[in-house]
Amino acid sequence: MVLVFVTGNGHKFQEASCLFSQMGIDLEQADLGYPEVQADSLEEVAEFGIAWCKEKLKKPCFIEDAGIFIDVLNGFPGPYSKYVFQRIGNQGILKLLDDKMNRQATFRSVIALQDGLSTHLFIGETKGRIAHEAMGTGGFGYDPIFIPEKNDRTFAQMGMEEKNQLSHRGKSLYKLVNHFKERK
Amino acid sequence: MVLVFVTGNGHKFQEASCLFSQMGIDLEQADLGYPEVQADSLEEVAEFGIAWCKEKLKKPCFIEDAGIFIDVLNGFPGPYSKYVFQRIGNQGILKLLDDKMNRQATFRSVIALQDGLSTHLFIGETKGRIAHEAMGTGGFGYDPIFIPEKNDRTFAQMGMEEKNQLSHRGKSLYKLVNHFKERK
Repeated sequence: MVLVFVTGNGHKFQEASCLFSQMGIDLEQADLGYPEVQADSLEEVAEFGIAWCKEKLKKPCFIEDAGIFIDVLNGFPGPYSKYVFQRIGNQGILKLLDDKMNRQATFRSVIALQDGLSTHLFIGETKGRIAHEAMGTGGFGYDPIFIPEKNDRTFAQMGMEEKNQLSHRGKSLYKLVNHFKERK
Repeated sequence: MVLVFVTGNGHKFQEASCLFSQMGIDLEQADLGYPEVQADSLEEVAEFGIAWCKEKLKKPCFIEDAGIFIDVLNGFPGPYSKYVFQRIGNQGILKLLDDKMNRQATFRSVIALQDGLSTHLFIGETKGRIAHEAMGTGGFGYDPIFIPEKNDRTFAQMGMEEKNQLSHRGKSLYKLVNHFKERK
């Protein structure tokens, strides 16, 4: 079986490819630049995107979208995490929170799979808090300011294996892989 | 001639409707909830949206999208102005700028018109600066913190007529109306 992961992110593709090869499923990468719609939830973004990919590819495929939702900022930056990071960065987020006691945040990953018959969503969530300063050099994006719960180090202070076991994307990919295992 | 303004915003519709009735063009409102794509520019958002509206309506129509671009924040919140306003509000913007000397910002409005043959874009821009505190009760969104250049009052401190003469949307609508005048 061949499955297409529609993404321009080589790092994400490697992560998923490794998981799937162990199951005898060949993962192909397609960098289609599918449209990401403005919406309040990652689920809407993913459902709109996968419908577009289905029309374009006409074979089984999935996409993944992720974001960080900060409680005291009403879920900001949420579905716009990438854009916000490029514009105001971790320093902007730390500034918005500098007088806030509540630093709870959730990293979310949504995978939308189109198997030719229907669309399936797989959600991965990791709760945690925003640090008071950026720490660590690993990972990317908001990793240096996110401390997963029951931890005192940020994602950027962890090795990739440790991060993947705790991370939102690790969880959604794990559910996707299980979906295929159950159908075998 | 009938022209459709695709918008869910009654205030915007009134503004445009008034301008067009003077020219003998009937403006219809259609609240289609067209998809707004995530993009770095309002132009991309508008072009994607109007292509969708064209397919749906199959008659002459236009949409309008606007945003505020703050220089020192690399254009943030830009195409995501509405979302950002809902989440962190004017207080969030003021906080991000509280130690910044450069407070230059530009309000932009992009109208995309589909006349059955092709798509036309009409751009309206108003340069100005972000105030140090919210002032005034008129208008909506970022109006209380935006002071247009050569002024010392915010949009929210002006009457509607005065604001419309200076505003980004006033300018793009004026260009749209002129486009029809020239074709008469």
